[in-house]
Amino acid sequence: MIRQDEGMPFLLNFENVAWYENGQVRILDRRIFPMEKKFVYCSDYHEIIKAIQEMVTQSAGPYTAVGMGMALAAYQCKDKNQREQIDFLTKAAKELGNARPTTANRYFAITSRTLAKQIEALKNGKSAISAAFDDTLDSLNRRYFTMQKVGNYLVDQFPNNSSILTQCYGETIIGAIIRAAHASNKDLKIFNAETRPFMQGARLTSSCFQEAGFDTTVITDNMTNFVLENGDIDFYTSAADTIAMDGHIANKIGTKQIAILANRVGVPYFVTGIPDQDKKNKDAIKMEFRDPKQVLEFSGIKTTLEGVKAIYPSFDITSPELIGAIVTDKGVFSPYSLEDYKELGGEDFY
Amino acid sequence: MIRQDEGMPFLLNFENVAWYENGQVRILDRRIFPMEKKFVYCSDYHEIIKAIQEMVTQSAGPYTAVGMGMALAAYQCKDKNQREQIDFLTKAAKELGNARPTTANRYFAITSRTLAKQIEALKNGKSAISAAFDDTLDSLNRRYFTMQKVGNYLVDQFPNNSSILTQCYGETIIGAIIRAAHASNKDLKIFNAETRPFMQGARLTSSCFQEAGFDTTVITDNMTNFVLENGDIDFYTSAADTIAMDGHIANKIGTKQIAILANRVGVPYFVTGIPDQDKKNKDAIKMEFRDPKQVLEFSGIKTTLEGVKAIYPSFDITSPELIGAIVTDKGVFSPYSLEDYKELGGEDFY
Repeated sequence: MIRQDEGMPFLLNFENVAWYENGQVRILDRRIFPMEKKFVYCSDYHEIIKAIQEMVTQSAGPYTAVGMGMALAAYQCKDKNQREQIDFLTKAAKELGNARPTTANRYFAITSRTLAKQIEALKNGKSAISAAFDDTLDSLNRRYFTMQKVGNYLVDQFPNNSSILTQCYGETIIGAIIRAAHASNKDLKIFNAETRPFMQGARLTSSCFQEAGFDTTVITDNMTNFVLENGDIDFYTSAADTIAMDGHIANKIGTKQIAILANRVGVPYFVTGIPDQDKKNKDAIKMEFRDPKQVLEFSGIKTTLEGVKAIYPSFDITSPELIGAIVTDKGVFSPYSLEDYKELGGEDFY
Repeated sequence: MIRQDEGMPFLLNFENVAWYENGQVRILDRRIFPMEKKFVYCSDYHEIIKAIQEMVTQSAGPYTAVGMGMALAAYQCKDKNQREQIDFLTKAAKELGNARPTTANRYFAITSRTLAKQIEALKNGKSAISAAFDDTLDSLNRRYFTMQKVGNYLVDQFPNNSSILTQCYGETIIGAIIRAAHASNKDLKIFNAETRPFMQGARLTSSCFQEAGFDTTVITDNMTNFVLENGDIDFYTSAADTIAMDGHIANKIGTKQIAILANRVGVPYFVTGIPDQDKKNKDAIKMEFRDPKQVLEFSGIKTTLEGVKAIYPSFDITSPELIGAIVTDKGVFSPYSLEDYKELGGEDFY
C-alpha cells in the first residue's frame, strides 16, 4: 500500500506522529505544539512508556508510538540470541501494551500483533526491527485509508462555502476532511472550539486547517452558543471515542453541550467514525475521569488558590436524538440504523 | 457609614481594589491573581489610566481606581494655587473618565462627581485629596451596602447545603453571597465555570469562595452541561452587566449557554443586580467585541499558529424565558415584572 499521509498537515505526517529510525523513536511533543515543534527522542522503549504516560502524544498517537516502540525494542536486543530476543520482545509488548491503564486493551492488542510478526520474522531469519516497523506502517496506512472514506462521505454533505464547527482534535479525520475538501474543490470556513483543558481544538485542529489554507477561527468553549445562534455555523462535526450500536456516542467533554445548542438552532451534528460493533448500547461505554490538576492549570501555570478542587470528566455521552448522522467508512447512517452498518461487514481498523 | 467590606474576601477588601495613601495609588494586579498577589503602584494619575487600559483591574475595579486617581491628582497639584489646582483636576477628571472607551460614560460620571466635591472643598479651604478619597470610599460603601441586600435576597432562596454554579466574577455580589451565607449559617457547595479567556471564574470567583471556607470546585466551560445533567447543581447564578426592563440581561460570554443548559434540566437561573431603568429592552443593550488576541492566548502564551483568527464577543444576551428570577436590592422579581421594581423607586448605585 502506498503511503496514505500524502497531502496531510504536519501533525498527521507519519514521521511527525512517532517514527523509528536508526535505533531511535522520535515522538512529536503535542503538549507544546504549535508553540514549539519539538520531538522527544527515545533510545530505550521504557522512555516511550514514560512519554505516553506524560502525554507527549495522545489520541491515536500512542497506537503508533507503541508499534514503533516494538521496533526499538527489537533494536535494543538485536545482539542477543533468538530465545533471549523473543523473551525481551515479549516483555516489551506487555509493558508498552500497558503504558496507560485506560486504553491498555487497545495498546496491548497492537503490541501483541506486532510481537507475533516479530517472532515469525526471527524464526525465518528476518529482521524483527523491520517486522515491527512495517506492521506499524501498515496499520497507519490502513487507518488513514479507512478514515479517508469517512472524510469523503462527510465532505459530500457540505455544500461549497459551508461553515463548520469542530470540537477537540479528531486526528486522522481532520486530515481526511482537508484532503476531501481539496479534492472536491470545496472551500470551507472552519470554527474550532478550543477544548479546554488540553486545548486540542486551539492547538491541534486549528493548526491543521490553517496550514491547509482554510479560513480558520478559534473560539473559547463558552462562545459556541454565540456563533451557533448568530448563524455563523452550517454544520457541527466531531469524531467519537466510542460509537455504540444504539446511536449513543462518547467523545471529549463538551461535545454534548455543543450538540444540544446546535440542535436548538437547527444546526445538524455529524459524528464521524467506525461504529463499535462490540458496544451494544450506552451502558457499554465506560466513563473516564482524568487528573483534575489539568483543569486547575494551563500549560503548567496554576490558575487557582491552593485548596480549590476540580473535576475532569474526560468524555460525555451524546444521545442519538441530538445526532443528525453517523458518517462512517461505509456511508452515512442515521444513529438509529447502525445495524445496517453491521450488515455491510466490519473493517480491520487498527 | 461604617466600612462595608468587613468579612469580605481579600479581592474585595477596599485596600485590595484600588487605594490612595501618601501620594500613591496601589491597584491589585488582577491579571496575575491568585498566582501572584502583586500591586501596581502609581504616583502619577496617568499611570492609573495606563493600568486600567492594560487590564490591571477590571469589572468594577476601575470605578474605584479612577476615584482614587482623583485623590492622587489632587496630591500631584497640591502646591499650585487654587485656580491651577482646579484646572489640573478638571483635566484629570476628563482623562481618567475616558481611560477605557467602552465604559467611559460611567468613569466620567464618577470623576465628574468627585471633581465637583473637590472644587467645593478647595473653595472652602479644605483638602481636595480627602474630598476625592472620601467620595470614593462613600461610593464603595454605598455599592457594597446595596449589593449586600441583593446577596441576602439571593441566599434566602438557597436551602442549606445547596450547590451553586456561577459564571465569571460578579465582584461585590460574590462577597455579599459569602457574608449572607455565613450570617444565615448556610453551607453552600460552589462550582465555578472558569470563564475563558480571562479566567475570572477560576482565578477570581473561586479564590473568594475558597478563602471564605466553602467547598469550591472549578470546571472548564465545556463541563457545565456535565455537572448540570449529573445533578450536581441546584442553582445557577450570575451577575449582569445590564438588566433591561423587558427581562433581557447581558453578561459575560457563555452566560446564555449555561442558562439554556440549566433550563433544559430544570435548574433555576437567578440573575443578580440592579435593573437598568434607562434600558427599556434588549435593543438598548450594546454588544461589545474585544481584542480577539486574548482568545488565541492564555496568560500571554500563544496557543495557535500564526494566521489563525478568533472572535471575542465579550457578552451575550439571555432572554427572560431562561431566567427564573432577577434578584435585586428590593427583592426577587420575575424577569417579566421589572416594572414593579421601578415603582419601588431607584437607588444611587455608583
